[in-house]
Amino acid sequence: MNTFLHAKDLGNFDEALEIARELKEDRYKYEQLGKHKTALLVFFNNSLRTRLSTQKAARNLGLDVIVLDVNQGAWKLETERGVVMNGDRSEHLLEAIPVMASFCDIIGVRTFAGLTNREDDYTECILNQFIRYSGKPVFSMESATAHPLQSFADLITIDEYKKTKRPKVVLTWAPHPKALPQAVPNSFAEWMRAADFDLVVTHPEGYELDPLFVGDARVEYDQMKAFEGADFVYAKNWSCPGVTNPADYGKILCNEPSWTVSQRQMAVTNDAHFMHCLPVRRNVVVTDEVIESPRSLVIPEAANREISASVVLKQMLANL
Amino acid sequence: MNTFLHAKDLGNFDEALEIARELKEDRYKYEQLGKHKTALLVFFNNSLRTRLSTQKAARNLGLDVIVLDVNQGAWKLETERGVVMNGDRSEHLLEAIPVMASFCDIIGVRTFAGLTNREDDYTECILNQFIRYSGKPVFSMESATAHPLQSFADLITIDEYKKTKRPKVVLTWAPHPKALPQAVPNSFAEWMRAADFDLVVTHPEGYELDPLFVGDARVEYDQMKAFEGADFVYAKNWSCPGVTNPADYGKILCNEPSWTVSQRQMAVTNDAHFMHCLPVRRNVVVTDEVIESPRSLVIPEAANREISASVVLKQMLANL
Amino acid sequence: MNTFLHAKDLGNFDEALEIARELKEDRYKYEQLGKHKTALLVFFNNSLRTRLSTQKAARNLGLDVIVLDVNQGAWKLETERGVVMNGDRSEHLLEAIPVMASFCDIIGVRTFAGLTNREDDYTECILNQFIRYSGKPVFSMESATAHPLQSFADLITIDEYKKTKRPKVVLTWAPHPKALPQAVPNSFAEWMRAADFDLVVTHPEGYELDPLFVGDARVEYDQMKAFEGADFVYAKNWSCPGVTNPADYGKILCNEPSWTVSQRQMAVTNDAHFMHCLPVRRNVVVTDEVIESPRSLVIPEAANREISASVVLKQMLANL
Repeated sequence: MNTFLHAKDLGNFDEALEIARELKEDRYKYEQLGKHKTALLVFFNNSLRTRLSTQKAARNLGLDVIVLDVNQGAWKLETERGVVMNGDRSEHLLEAIPVMASFCDIIGVRTFAGLTNREDDYTECILNQFIRYSGKPVFSMESATAHPLQSFADLITIDEYKKTKRPKVVLTWAPHPKALPQAVPNSFAEWMRAADFDLVVTHPEGYELDPLFVGDARVEYDQMKAFEGADFVYAKNWSCPGVTNPADYGKILCNEPSWTVSQRQMAVTNDAHFMHCLPVRRNVVVTDEVIESPRSLVIPEAANREISASVVLKQMLANL
Repeated sequence: MNTFLHAKDLGNFDEALEIARELKEDRYKYEQLGKHKTALLVFFNNSLRTRLSTQKAARNLGLDVIVLDVNQGAWKLETERGVVMNGDRSEHLLEAIPVMASFCDIIGVRTFAGLTNREDDYTECILNQFIRYSGKPVFSMESATAHPLQSFADLITIDEYKKTKRPKVVLTWAPHPKALPQAVPNSFAEWMRAADFDLVVTHPEGYELDPLFVGDARVEYDQMKAFEGADFVYAKNWSCPGVTNPADYGKILCNEPSWTVSQRQMAVTNDAHFMHCLPVRRNVVVTDEVIESPRSLVIPEAANREISASVVLKQMLANL
Repeated sequence: MNTFLHAKDLGNFDEALEIARELKEDRYKYEQLGKHKTALLVFFNNSLRTRLSTQKAARNLGLDVIVLDVNQGAWKLETERGVVMNGDRSEHLLEAIPVMASFCDIIGVRTFAGLTNREDDYTECILNQFIRYSGKPVFSMESATAHPLQSFADLITIDEYKKTKRPKVVLTWAPHPKALPQAVPNSFAEWMRAADFDLVVTHPEGYELDPLFVGDARVEYDQMKAFEGADFVYAKNWSCPGVTNPADYGKILCNEPSWTVSQRQMAVTNDAHFMHCLPVRRNVVVTDEVIESPRSLVIPEAANREISASVVLKQMLANL
């Protein structure tokens, strides 16, 4: 594996889930793989789970880890070509990327959507420059349009808790005070489809996700109807993906509080497990009651971030 | 040891001091204890000594270390229960703590007193949430009301330099331009009492420390009188603890420059050693002359922070 | 080696270049040297290459690494003696340095020129306090007037690409929107002279470098003339060194765009390699065309930062 951005990059899911189980039993099983190798983790944006879980996973694999917070203690980076650089950005990605790559064997990149220009975000402008110019394996630690380490951790979690081979999984939009990227719902939809689960996506009209990720999954605008018989409920806010109207890209079109996931909706499910990638705004996205209930999986789901990152790094190291 | 906040958490002092001597001889003696284990150091506030000495101590024990600066590169954390989280705090400690705990074996927490609400501070609101919700051993790297790694280092230092079994130790308040927490004097008083040294506390009226820490130690409002015959002088500023008047909590009641520790007061001691936890404001808390004198122990005292943290981590690892 | 600031500190260049080649073959060859030793990297200023390459080099040598960003998460440091510290700086270097030194075996320091007071900068006020008060080996990771790890990497690079024993090396000033230190051109001139290369320095009048570094190297105010027959072109902006007029120290005296290195000047060279220490402002210091040409060495030059730091750390460890 030379790039990790989409579900298909992981290869066979059954095999990946088997390695996940193996690493959960013995996190240091492949510790020799990373000896004398260095993972560089580049953060253009904030991170808690990703920062901690990826460092831990890299160390599990015996990798040395260097964390770089681009906006703290480094230089502001220019990303456009052909610019006369007389502003506040003192280094160009065209130099910064191969330089960073010189000092490591694998690169993880965290970069959020700008939410102002749909094309910039959906072409994964920054991540793709890393892939193109680094000459090293690159994995997304959440990029503009995808969060595959999260979705893989979600898959591992559902695999651990599901009681049927093909559970009903509902991805539901929820309100939020700020405009958020579509990376998590995009990847979640993509991975659930790739796993061939019974995916239903529910959101207010206008929040349709990009077909690249959501494919032909069933979309249901009536949240209560979508929840009926669900085995897993995955809540997440996202801003307008701009699929039907590009001018709305990144906007908050709706803040309807009835979409907050509460006991009311959970009551019509098949005693569903509640999931969220975190961080979560309590009593905005989900009520205290639901997130604290015994059916909530938010903590084991986050803990599985160490496992998903370990599997991905293991597969990348095997290819070096 | 599952929690390290108070002097009693360390167990038998003689045994702890013996391990301290052992580790000072050979810092890597217990390196095998931490193999395949990870210490997470969470900083809600600034730190120099604690940041460096605790990292060093953890590596001495063979631990992997992950440093998390909560206010740099992570998410702002909500600490109150039941809140509708539609402000600037995007994650709740109720999720953040168990998530952080998922990726480590031991957690160190640095969190300062807010100095606005005595009860919030003295109930150790944040640290206790870590103890309650992490399911992992938690040690204070200075919390709202206590700084036990500092006081243990102070104890080690006094143990190394004392010439009598029960030295006279004077804890003296000193002026400072900013309102500071009571964590250091609280813990120092607690530890000196637990070590059964002859403790005298001196400060202007109104600065009485909480009885929980200072117990029945002798308080002397006349600084010169307190210094008479002292073997060790420990200087520190603190803001009003609000013991007699809770409304004054966290306020600066006095900035009397005559309290600055100078040769004038040191002259009446028993050729006392000067101590301070650092950082120290020169010529405000103490004169250049006193802090640079051969009797000043501020540097060996700081260096012993590596030793105190090593002993504490060693004891915690032994219990895992 | 107890201090690394000037070319002479490295000792014999041929031997150092031999170790460089050795470490480039096998970066972990001397991994045992750093076992149970800790390098502390102290950053007072921004850094990308230095931050990454020095961490990598230290790990190559088996050192533990602690990175300290003084202005993020630590305390603001007072550097003047005798001050009444009642402002915003809560710790004095006189305490901070020996404290930092307590927890490590080798110290790297990054500190930029203030560019307001020539004497402060050229006496290396901060770095020299580290050398004087730490009691540990100290190496510059770029200080006020010198950047020896960069110049040593430049030397390694030229050594790899030169076709004659004594290549013509042109150090050329270039425009820049901000006032920059002289550290890189100072060290580059010093190292090229120490290597006995045919050095020509070209810049607008008023930008004369300090004789301490530039010695009797040929200075040519006509950039085109300087470039004639060059084997290597090293571009860098610097602000006025204040050699002829101290009042101009740190000022931008000229921003003449004709000095931007472009194909026009490169055409008169001996098919010269282009070099720059990075970060570089494209189309201000150098055109896209030149920096992207096959003769550009900016990336291998940056990659050699790992090698120069490895050699320096290896030599320092050998002396411990």
